[in-house]
Parts: sequence; structure tokens; C-alpha cells
Amino acid sequence: MPWQWESADNNSFHRVAADFRKGKNTPRQYLECFLENIARYEGNVKAFTALNIDNARQLADDSTRRYQSGKALSELDGCPFGIKDIIDTADFPTECGSPIFKGSPANFDAACVEVLKRAGAIIVGKTVTTEFAIGVSGVTHNPHRLGHTPGGSSSGSAAAVAASMLPVALGTQTLGSIIRPASFCGIVGFKPSYGVLPLGGVHPVSGSHDHLGILSANIDDAWLTARLLSSRSGSPNFPPLLPGPQASGFGPDRPPRLIRLYLDAWLSETSTPLREAMDLYIDQLREQGISIADKNNTREIAELEDAISKFSPDSREMIAYDMRWPYMQYRSRYPGMLSDKIMELLELSESVTSEAYAGYLSNRKKIRDLVRTAVGNADGFITLSAPTPAPPGLEFTGSRNYAALWSLLGFPAFSLPILKTDDLPVGVQIMHVDNHDAVLYELASWLMKTRHASA
Amino acid sequence: MPWQWESADNNSFHRVAADFRKGKNTPRQYLECFLENIARYEGNVKAFTALNIDNARQLADDSTRRYQSGKALSELDGCPFGIKDIIDTADFPTECGSPIFKGSPANFDAACVEVLKRAGAIIVGKTVTTEFAIGVSGVTHNPHRLGHTPGGSSSGSAAAVAASMLPVALGTQTLGSIIRPASFCGIVGFKPSYGVLPLGGVHPVSGSHDHLGILSANIDDAWLTARLLSSRSGSPNFPPLLPGPQASGFGPDRPPRLIRLYLDAWLSETSTPLREAMDLYIDQLREQGISIADKNNTREIAELEDAISKFSPDSREMIAYDMRWPYMQYRSRYPGMLSDKIMELLELSESVTSEAYAGYLSNRKKIRDLVRTAVGNADGFITLSAPTPAPPGLEFTGSRNYAALWSLLGFPAFSLPILKTDDLPVGVQIMHVDNHDAVLYELASWLMKTRHASA
Repeated sequence: MPWQWESADNNSFHRVAADFRKGKNTPRQYLECFLENIARYEGNVKAFTALNIDNARQLADDSTRRYQSGKALSELDGCPFGIKDIIDTADFPTECGSPIFKGSPANFDAACVEVLKRAGAIIVGKTVTTEFAIGVSGVTHNPHRLGHTPGGSSSGSAAAVAASMLPVALGTQTLGSIIRPASFCGIVGFKPSYGVLPLGGVHPVSGSHDHLGILSANIDDAWLTARLLSSRSGSPNFPPLLPGPQASGFGPDRPPRLIRLYLDAWLSETSTPLREAMDLYIDQLREQGISIADKNNTREIAELEDAISKFSPDSREMIAYDMRWPYMQYRSRYPGMLSDKIMELLELSESVTSEAYAGYLSNRKKIRDLVRTAVGNADGFITLSAPTPAPPGLEFTGSRNYAALWSLLGFPAFSLPILKTDDLPVGVQIMHVDNHDAVLYELASWLMKTRHASA
Repeated sequence: MPWQWESADNNSFHRVAADFRKGKNTPRQYLECFLENIARYEGNVKAFTALNIDNARQLADDSTRRYQSGKALSELDGCPFGIKDIIDTADFPTECGSPIFKGSPANFDAACVEVLKRAGAIIVGKTVTTEFAIGVSGVTHNPHRLGHTPGGSSSGSAAAVAASMLPVALGTQTLGSIIRPASFCGIVGFKPSYGVLPLGGVHPVSGSHDHLGILSANIDDAWLTARLLSSRSGSPNFPPLLPGPQASGFGPDRPPRLIRLYLDAWLSETSTPLREAMDLYIDQLREQGISIADKNNTREIAELEDAISKFSPDSREMIAYDMRWPYMQYRSRYPGMLSDKIMELLELSESVTSEAYAGYLSNRKKIRDLVRTAVGNADGFITLSAPTPAPPGLEFTGSRNYAALWSLLGFPAFSLPILKTDDLPVGVQIMHVDNHDAVLYELASWLMKTRHASA
């Protein structure tokens, strides 16, 4: 296992950037550490679909000169990035994990890539995605155990960060594609509120579920990236993320209040060692003075879980319906080039009426309102990120259970690398309601700072 | 002036489609009438950037055979369409009115085009747009008076319909780009609620303001098109339009209740003959038993207008901010190829902070809430579509006053070809709040049926 938390924190970009400003280190030196790991691990991990190391070195030198003259372009000037390969890049092919786009160059950079470049960030390469982020899995291995999946669909982004080949990478989540690989790879995953990050130039899966998000070794780097993307790209149909954490109200004198969710449907898939590890972690949080409401001690939470189970979220139907465009065009123009998995979704698509879809939207609205009410004066929700550690094999990228509900809701979620079973990492997922991204980041910081209590 | 209301109603697609089903007429014969007008008028009007008449004839024959075997694909099977040239089409170039995309083919059809094709509609050609639907104007002339602008940015779609070269065409509106050309060309313009129609594959101007919409000779054809697009494309983040008009509550025994808006900022630009024509029309509606509240007889309306004026909607700043992507890329990759108009917006863009943008969003929310409250038990708002008829010359596409506010709000609006001054058409605009598209359509039908009272 190449990666360890301590070094991830010490080597976080925002920490070394402070050194760059003092002339103690340079973006080029920083980049070289990651390039060394790429040389060492990429052959086995296979996180990248394309790399441009020469160009990355040149960009790092440009950034080095900017720091030397006190003219850094942003808080992320000189930060190496990987870009999930369903996101358009003008300088790399954008293949979407599909033979349909094999070798295809995009004409322009996606909005997120353009913002990163204008901010002086360094795009080192494109990272492996499952087919269109919803179909068959890619070739990437989990750096913690090579025969195991890194999770999908942001497989390459998660594995590259986990192997310290990159400090940060962009991913997307339609159901579980950031939270799950972050969990399996033992890194941070951050899916901000729906609509907060720009999707221009990101290949669509489902307009009702797609989120752009971040995979990183360190929570502060994830937050800085989200903040930059939300504040410098156009068309935010939402308030940009605030410049710093909002006052959440919790602090040294008032520990956070959390709501633990464990729906029966989630628990039934959860391995026994992981249940025990999570219970132990929750006990440790309680020992730190954190109050944790759950269905056993709070009637409202039991009622919320019942209501969610009753509504039985219809994400699969909604996503299939959404996929009509452009996937039906792919189906007719490129016969035989879509996987069975996507062909099945398109078949399902044809059976979903627009009246049914309107009903799903209305169900979603009800669940959103219930969750907004349930959060009350709590500082967030807590649960697992996945029901197991990374399963063996590369074909099955793991269950989306746990992660999917917050994708449907469009509310923010972090996966934090806190637990371990069978010597493999598993994430703790924390969630909040829409527009509470900053509070959630603050909660993530608290939990990461106190995580050693659970070691 | 080639076009007249009577024939537009008689030749509306939904009316002839009933004949197709009875074998009395065919899609091919219907198409030929429009092709004749194209041969006659297009040389002067210049509504199209590309035409494929051979293919249209073949598609019309296919459709004819489907009707003959009782297998029409939809209510719009065989309907000829024009597509504004900022909308991707795989079979025609998509040039966006910009030299940057001169001769560029799109690889795929936009979601709306795909839905139309799957429904058996016939894409006859692409129609002229101003540069990226926000920059310099195109070459199209107003069929009612050739030296005058047809309005922009959906210039070609409006002119083609006005000259009876097409029964229906797709357009887009960011500020006034459907309502204004519909008004100047004396046709129907319909901009449904924000998000109701699919924008996949439509070149973006402003994610906060862009709407897809319809220009047509007949309101029912506009409604059928909107309903088809909203119910057959994926990713509707909104309930699809209902299969028919909702029961609005008004009818023969209870005439509609309307709220007339005339903001000072609108009136100050309005020509005197047009003010008089509108006043006369309002009087005629009152004579029909329609109750019309306005700032003179209802204090709440006066307060609403004051509040709107005070918030001084910031659309221009929002749109400039939104345009960062992809226009900043165009600016750097294609120096000298963007018009001064777009270059100025990009300059403005750089001065708009994300904090200011958050403020604009919050202002918009306030105005939306005020308008939702103000509509009360009324059946819609009524005002002009533009402050003048089509001005002379092709460069200035006319004022966006009147149309812009409802674009900011994202609420539905129709322009109805009811008034005339200086022998040029001017539209009456009716509006409602979000998700009241069906009520608005019902109101449009009422007003069109009773319009002869004002002749």
C-alpha cells in the first residue's frame, strides 16, 4: 500500500503551497514526487488513459516562476490534477471509456478544466472511467490490493490519488461514483450539492443525478478545488461556495450533533466486521462528546428511515429515462458498441413514461423535504460510504448502496478515509442538506482531526 | 406580406394532420406548399443557413407511408421544422452564426432534434441566428418589410415561419430571442418555463437564462411541439408538460382574470401608436368581460412594479458571468473572431464577482416570489412583447425590454400576433409563473380565438 494518511496530510497541496510562497519548495519539485510514483505504480495500477508528463513539467516550471515573482494565479496554482475521462479536454483524447470515442479529441476544455488551467493548475493526465461512467468497468486496480476493484466509476481518479500519483483528481457521481471509489481507495471524496460545480463539457449520464466532484488525499485540497470551481466558472445556478467554512455553531465548547442513518436496505448488505467497526467508531465519537441521534434513540429518525424506505427511491428508472439522450443516438449510430449494461438501461428507458418520471420527481421532492426537516439543529448525517471494502476482481465495482440516496437528493456528501476492515480501507460518509456544503466541510475537518481516536 | 392569420390557422400542422389520418392530404403535399414558399421568398428573406430539400421530400414520403398504414410516430409525424443554428444537428453544419464554427458539423443531434426525428418530424433546414444568439445580427430580413429586422436572435426561425416557409421552428431565448422576433414577425412565440425543454446539444449562452422554445404560425402547433419535446427527451428536471391544457378555471361563464403590467422602464421606450393600440386592445378585452387589474386600479400591482423596478434585474451581469465558459476559450483560441459585442460582455464578465452573482441569484429569487404571490387568483399577466414594431435596418434587432424580465424569472411566456402599428405586426405577451405553462396555453387559445374583436 503506497499511501498513508500522515504523508497525505503533510504533502497536501495547500500545505506545500505555503512553502512555495516562502521559496522553500517549488511546484516543479512537488510534481516530481508524484511523477516518481507514477513511474513506480502506474504499470500495476493503470489509473491513467493518457499522460503528458513533458507538458506537466513545463507547466510546473511556469508555476514555479509565478511563485518566485509573487504572482500565483490562485490557491491552486501549480497543483497537479487528474481529470476523469468523461470530462472534455482539448489537449488529451476524451474517450469516455467507450470504443465509440476511442482516440477522439474534444475541441474544447470542459468548464471545470478551463477554470483549473486559468488558475494555474497542472493537468497531468486523464483518468480511467467505467464506460460513460455507468457501463462496464475499466482496467484500473486498487492500489491497496491490486486484484481488487478501486470502485467506479471514477476509478482512475481514486486509484491515482490513493497511489500518491496525484494529490487531487476530478470525478463525477451519478449514483455512487465518487463516494464509493473514495471509500475503496481510502481517500477523500467530496460531492458538493447538485449544481454547485459546472457540468459544461462533462459527458452526461443523467441530468437529474449527475454531479461533478473531487477525489483527493486531503480534505482541504478537496474544499479548495470545489471553491475554485464554483466561484470561477460561469452559469452557477446556485450561490457559489463561500470563501471559507461557515460558522456551523459547533466548536471546542459544543461538539457536533450528528444523525446516524442506517437503513435496513443498507445494513442487509453490510459485512459484519464493517458493522462492528462502524459501531465502534460511533462509540468513540460519543466518547468525544458528540451526540448521535439514530432510529433507536429518536423517533423522528426512525420515521424518516421508514419514509425513505417506503418511497423506495427510483434512481435507476430516472437515470434510464435521462439516458435517452444521447445514448439512444449512440445505440442507433454505433450498433454493437454499447455494453449490455447500457443496452439494458436503454431498454428500461423505453418503459418509463413521462408521467412516471413526473412521479419520481415528486417523490424526490418529498424525500428532500423530509431530510431537510429531519436535519433540524443537527450538524450533519453520518453513515458508511459502502457496505464492504473493495471486493475482489475488477469487473464488479461494488455496491452503490449508502451512496445512492444522496445522489438522488442532490445534497452534499463527503467520504472520509477513517475505517478499515480486512486491512482494506472503508469510508465514513457524512452528509448534509443542500447549500450546507461549508458546514459539511467543517464537520469533515473535525472528524479528520479527531480520527486517531479510532485507530 | 406573404403571411396571413387565416391561412396560418387553416394550414396549421395539427389541423392538416387530421386530414393525413383520413387520407385526404399527405405530409409530402403539405411539405411542397412550404417548399414553394421557400423557392419564392428565401432569396429575399434569407432565413436559412442550410437546407436539405431532397432529404426533406424523402422523409415526407416516409411519413406519408406511415399515415397510410396507420402508423404515425407521433402527433408531429410529417411536420416540417426549422432548427436555429445554435442547435446541434448531425446532418447539417452547426455554425452558431460565428466564423469560429464556419462549416463545422456537429457529431450528434441535440436532444430536441433527436426527439423530433424519432417522432417523424422533418428537419428542412437550419435557420439564421445572431452570433452565438447574443452577438452581431445575421442576414435575415423581416418578411413583412424586407428592409427591417426580423428581430433576434432566433431571426431565421421567426422569418421562415412568417413567410410560410415553415409551419414551426425551434428557437432559443436568453433575454428576448423568441418573444421579440415572434412579435416583429407577427407569429406565435412560446418560451416554456425554464428547464422544461431539453438544452442538451444547444450551444450555451447563459446557464441561468437560456431557454429552448418554439416559433410557429399557430399556437396549437407550438404547444404540441413543447409537449412532445418535454415528454420524450431525457433529463427533465421538472414535471413534463401535461398531455393537455390544465383546467384553469376560466371558461364561457367565467372569463379570464388578467394582470396588466406596464413598468415605467418599459413604457418609456414604447411608441405612442403602440401604447394606444395596446390600450384599445385592453379596452376590448374588458368589453368581453375579462377583468384586468393594473397599477392604476390595484395597489398590490403598483407595489409589485415598484419592487421589480427597485431590484433592477441584473440579467446583463449574470449573462456576462455565465459566458465565461466557453467564450473565454473562444477569445483565447480564436483571437479577433468574436464580435465587439461579445468581447464587451467578456470584459464585463471579469468585473462580476461570484459574491455579486450570488446576490443576483438572491434578487431573482425575491422577484420570483413576489410575482408568484402577485398572480394570486389571476389567470396570467398581459403586456406588450416589444416597445415598437420591427425597426428598420438589419443591424439592430430591437429592444429586449418587455421580454427580458420573464427570461430572468424563467417563467413561461407567449407572444401572440394580435396588434399592428404602421402596418407592421406587434405581439401581445402573456405570462404566468413556473409550471403554469398549460394554463398559459389555455389563455393563449382564448385570446387568439377572440382576437378578431380587436381587428
